[in-house]
Amino acid sequence: MSVMLEFAMFPTDKGESVSEFVSRIIKMIDESGVTYKLTPMGTIVEVETLDEALDVVKKAYSQLEPDCHRIYSSIKLDIRKGKTGRLAQKIESIEKNIGREVKK
Amino acid sequence: MSVMLEFAMFPTDKGESVSEFVSRIIKMIDESGVTYKLTPMGTIVEVETLDEALDVVKKAYSQLEPDCHRIYSSIKLDIRKGKTGRLAQKIESIEKNIGREVKK
Amino acid sequence: MSVMLEFAMFPTDKGESVSEFVSRIIKMIDESGVTYKLTPMGTIVEVETLDEALDVVKKAYSQLEPDCHRIYSSIKLDIRKGKTGRLAQKIESIEKNIGREVKK
Amino acid sequence: MSVMLEFAMFPTDKGESVSEFVSRIIKMIDESGVTYKLTPMGTIVEVETLDEALDVVKKAYSQLEPDCHRIYSSIKLDIRKGKTGRLAQKIESIEKNIGREVKK
Repeated sequence: MSVMLEFAMFPTDKGESVSEFVSRIIKMIDESGVTYKLTPMGTIVEVETLDEALDVVKKAYSQLEPDCHRIYSSIKLDIRKGKTGRLAQKIESIEKNIGREVKK
Repeated sequence: MSVMLEFAMFPTDKGESVSEFVSRIIKMIDESGVTYKLTPMGTIVEVETLDEALDVVKKAYSQLEPDCHRIYSSIKLDIRKGKTGRLAQKIESIEKNIGREVKK
Repeated sequence: MSVMLEFAMFPTDKGESVSEFVSRIIKMIDESGVTYKLTPMGTIVEVETLDEALDVVKKAYSQLEPDCHRIYSSIKLDIRKGKTGRLAQKIESIEKNIGREVKK
Repeated sequence: MSVMLEFAMFPTDKGESVSEFVSRIIKMIDESGVTYKLTPMGTIVEVETLDEALDVVKKAYSQLEPDCHRIYSSIKLDIRKGKTGRLAQKIESIEKNIGREVKK
């Protein structure tokens, strides 16, 4: 099974720039060994179970919880049985359909 | 602490109408005793911890998992320390600001 | 055609409480005459075309633009041909499936 | 001004695999000349106004409308005054904070 989790999480009580807080989350994910991809609007993680995916959300929250009073998160899940390696394959499949490379 | 979870979850391999599947999730939530509110685009749950919120997502997935091959979910979290009862208060606060009742 | 738009929009440079800004948007929608429903996590609007739906987003932005420096918005669209009146029907359909009233 | 739009759009009446439909949207965006980045969970576009951003959503819908009966879309907007070039800068800023390259 392939569980793709895309999420953004940030404090809304820390003013306009939140990259310090987002960086804590990315550092945690990068060190955790999970398969991921950082995008300009969030982070995409591919794991094998929903539990593993939601654990990433919990650990992300733990990075912000000590010094943030209000936290917002937007999450998407795409869960598909009988698949693996979709983090790379989804883009390849689209490039094959279109017949050329795209910006990624 | 008030954790507000808004989520929609549905299979994408079952054709255009998915209300049978969504109904399973609402039934589970309604029977669980959690504070919730059904909207035309999803369900809003208010709990006290992130763990409780993500447990609702896991249980929702368990309702669809046995006979769905691909499942999509869109989730928003609004976590705020030092608050409770926001499921009712957020709308009341807006009505107070505007000075009249709104459609809800 | 039924276009259901659910959206939340708020400034992220105005501190923890944003209800003043959200109220401006709800006031505009309430006065516009569009079919809508306020929820504790956003606003759901039902219109007949995608253009009308995105016009609501533009007008919402206009309420915040003059004095906000950074604005975040989360939007969902559910567009279905051959349907109308889904703002009420979607919940009724689920209650019929479950066989009882739910919290809404 | 920098308007970052992240969106996913797909039919829900076409079965489990929707890459044919998603490919139409990516092809349109790639040919439009707009600054974009394809991710495994959606497409991120950076433009200068909200109108331009919502025009991308409308054109995406036009690709699916002729032969899809039900369409779902999840959209995020991050609008920030006094900035440009964030499609590259947001990731660079996080790498600078962490002190190393991340997966992207």
